[in-house]
Amino acid sequence: MASAYAQLEALFGRIGALESAMSVLQWDASVMMPAGGGPARGAQLAGLSRLRRDLLAEDRVADLLDAAQGEALDEWQTANLRGMRRERVHAVAVPGDLLEALTKAGISCEGVWRGARESNDFAAILPEFEAMLALVKESAAAKGEALGCTPYEALLDENDPGRRTAEIDRLFGELSGFLPAFLDRVIERQNATPAPPVPVGPFPLTQQRLLARDLMTAVGFDFAHGRLDESQHPFCGGVPDDVRLTTRFDESRYDFSTMAVLHESGHAMYEQGLPAKWRGQPVGQAPGMAVHESQSLCVEMQASRTAAFQGWLAKRLSAAFGEDPAWEAEAVLRRATRVRRSMIRVEADEVTYPLHVILRYRLEWAMLGGDLVPVDLPGAWNDGMADLLEVTPANDREGCLQDIHWFLGAWGYFPTYTLGALAAAQLYATAKAQTAGLEDALAEGDFRPLMGWLRPHIHERGSLTTPADLIETATGQALGTAVFKAHLEARYPV
Amino acid sequence: MASAYAQLEALFGRIGALESAMSVLQWDASVMMPAGGGPARGAQLAGLSRLRRDLLAEDRVADLLDAAQGEALDEWQTANLRGMRRERVHAVAVPGDLLEALTKAGISCEGVWRGARESNDFAAILPEFEAMLALVKESAAAKGEALGCTPYEALLDENDPGRRTAEIDRLFGELSGFLPAFLDRVIERQNATPAPPVPVGPFPLTQQRLLARDLMTAVGFDFAHGRLDESQHPFCGGVPDDVRLTTRFDESRYDFSTMAVLHESGHAMYEQGLPAKWRGQPVGQAPGMAVHESQSLCVEMQASRTAAFQGWLAKRLSAAFGEDPAWEAEAVLRRATRVRRSMIRVEADEVTYPLHVILRYRLEWAMLGGDLVPVDLPGAWNDGMADLLEVTPANDREGCLQDIHWFLGAWGYFPTYTLGALAAAQLYATAKAQTAGLEDALAEGDFRPLMGWLRPHIHERGSLTTPADLIETATGQALGTAVFKAHLEARYPV
Repeated sequence: MASAYAQLEALFGRIGALESAMSVLQWDASVMMPAGGGPARGAQLAGLSRLRRDLLAEDRVADLLDAAQGEALDEWQTANLRGMRRERVHAVAVPGDLLEALTKAGISCEGVWRGARESNDFAAILPEFEAMLALVKESAAAKGEALGCTPYEALLDENDPGRRTAEIDRLFGELSGFLPAFLDRVIERQNATPAPPVPVGPFPLTQQRLLARDLMTAVGFDFAHGRLDESQHPFCGGVPDDVRLTTRFDESRYDFSTMAVLHESGHAMYEQGLPAKWRGQPVGQAPGMAVHESQSLCVEMQASRTAAFQGWLAKRLSAAFGEDPAWEAEAVLRRATRVRRSMIRVEADEVTYPLHVILRYRLEWAMLGGDLVPVDLPGAWNDGMADLLEVTPANDREGCLQDIHWFLGAWGYFPTYTLGALAAAQLYATAKAQTAGLEDALAEGDFRPLMGWLRPHIHERGSLTTPADLIETATGQALGTAVFKAHLEARYPV
Repeated sequence: MASAYAQLEALFGRIGALESAMSVLQWDASVMMPAGGGPARGAQLAGLSRLRRDLLAEDRVADLLDAAQGEALDEWQTANLRGMRRERVHAVAVPGDLLEALTKAGISCEGVWRGARESNDFAAILPEFEAMLALVKESAAAKGEALGCTPYEALLDENDPGRRTAEIDRLFGELSGFLPAFLDRVIERQNATPAPPVPVGPFPLTQQRLLARDLMTAVGFDFAHGRLDESQHPFCGGVPDDVRLTTRFDESRYDFSTMAVLHESGHAMYEQGLPAKWRGQPVGQAPGMAVHESQSLCVEMQASRTAAFQGWLAKRLSAAFGEDPAWEAEAVLRRATRVRRSMIRVEADEVTYPLHVILRYRLEWAMLGGDLVPVDLPGAWNDGMADLLEVTPANDREGCLQDIHWFLGAWGYFPTYTLGALAAAQLYATAKAQTAGLEDALAEGDFRPLMGWLRPHIHERGSLTTPADLIETATGQALGTAVFKAHLEARYPV
């Protein structure tokens, strides 16, 4: 008879197969699927998701988890067992029918949201949105009870295990205390000199596609274990041995695909670098989305926006699109580090981005707690933008309808973007301090020294520890705002 | 409390989600997956397949099946229940560990087979092949016991429900009694006149790709619910609402992609035409591969090789590739109906194709029964080719290593190709007799009259009846060889 732990590994191997199948099917839905395939795909994903939940919820899993607790396990097995227990708690807390209702609401609400955003019509999404919020509240309450935390924290815990709002309130309080005044000074200083020259498009798609592959290769992407494709919104999907990275190419913009590919390549390198021995097991996965985002931002924001790398990139851009003063290194760098008060989060620079996130954090927290009702969201959104960023959206399309998350059912997710940015700053600073020639290499388009540091300190550790411990061990200090602020002050002199 | 039948529908909906997920993942593996993704995909598919088996094998499913038997069910529900019972019998008969061993052997043996075929080295595949055969025998014996039939019939039953060897022996006996002499006379007659002119390539891929889409559109393929892609071997995968059709384009040949697309479009139309109300349920699926093949051959062999359609196709070919006497209608038709004694099944014409299948049927039957051992396969293959087709392969690559089926674990599958050809002849003859202007429409590249007949008589009936009843009801006679022989005699005068 196999040990309880061994039986659990076999079971979670099957659960891992379900999860990785869902990941490939989600990629396919965004990249390949014909329009008419949506309902069938929705049924597939809902069915697999329900199967996953039911497998985790079986009584024998609880018995095995208890029995395995008493077995002799090494450090990795112990962490794996902890991850198994965590997945079960999250799965069991939400009854199967509620999970199915949430899945269906997500599919339906997302569809209506696409139309409502297109036609700038918040009223059109309101009934679906209210129904979604009611289901999310029910799920959050059930999970909060199971985890012994607040409902909001229970949702957060799914995306960033162990994170609690007291810490986020403190970190975000420090950022909202610092950023607005800093932003004023950065923009004032930028406006004191003429804007950098802008290259004239169009930027042929063939060249952009070649450049995208060059950049992925530079970062270290392994094309034997992954692909580059195109989708409306860039993302990194698939599984560690077969990473599916996507971007969007726009003939009128060279920078969108360039930076999107660098960002997603950071995610991809993390996936490809996760411990191969633990594929499909909880401990073999990234410990949440904040750490995952730290990897994309380490590449896109920290490394790629250095003067060193932008100098190399400038030569590549010039080779791809032809001679132009706008491709001089200084001009390319200045455009890549230009700060603007803008309406759209996904287009925001690294100075204003946390303010976009803080707004969403406040609003979703208020909606879950009942202090804000959906019908009042547009007004609250615009007030928050005025307060934090001193701009007001002209309409809901560039306001509260811009992001897919809430309509899809992803609540308690937004904070991970900014927690990831803080972690990225600490990781990059540490890697640079501990790795001779890291930026000399970036000046040659070579990410190997950076990856050589990230591999053992982050990628290969999987979920051996909590996200908090992982960052603290790697950087020598708990997650905070100091290094991030210092990074901004160094890159954006005022 | 939901009725037992309703509970079963919910369960089989989830099983259907698993199956359809596997189908998309298999398509992805052939079309999209990077080389390094193979092991992870193998683990995914093995995990999903095991989950499917375990769900079907649960005791409560047997209880529900028994309880549902006593409930008031309509005709479709009754047929669905029969399909559920059949799926459970097949699933339970093979223990989970044997299923996993078979899945893994298939993945491993297929990999070795690719290399062995490439290097024409039968000895290299022999150990894996012997191991595969041992597992297939074990599985066939277990299934035969459960189904109350011979082990070979149990494998056949998976692919063509209810078919037994006595019927195949009779049908194949009639064909092997007729075809060799007929083939002699056809070739003699063909050789009495000069060969048709052959167009000079290359045939640009861009034109071939456009033509392929044109042909799919002509047949009636719904691109809102499907895609065309490229893979080494053409196939039709995906799910009814999202059919993934593939072909291969070769600049030196225009006819390969043309005929492959027509063949796969026949499969695709069947999938897209299955009863929408029964998606994901057993009764909503095609009743086996013989009927499925009848649909591809009805399009590719019956309809597309008529003088009517070849005349339309000739104009399209000329428009695509430029003026050439070889694109005259008569030349195009003569090339499309040229008969040859060839080594390779997938390239065979419709006269010799059944002989290739009969050889494989005899050999796999002998191997499963122990009358032929794998080490003797190459010699037996070559003897069989000499006997049936009067040709001898120059090596195993064009002999017993040419097909993937046995190495992948697909035994008892080959007969369905020829059973499908017989059914296609009956269906087309009946459709033509009952549909005014069917071939006039084909002469305009219009398959709507043919599909208008196939939809209600085949597609929309799903698995409401057995394959045998389906064909007999649609054509007014049991499956036989008479109509097929008459078709050959009409198309290939001697």
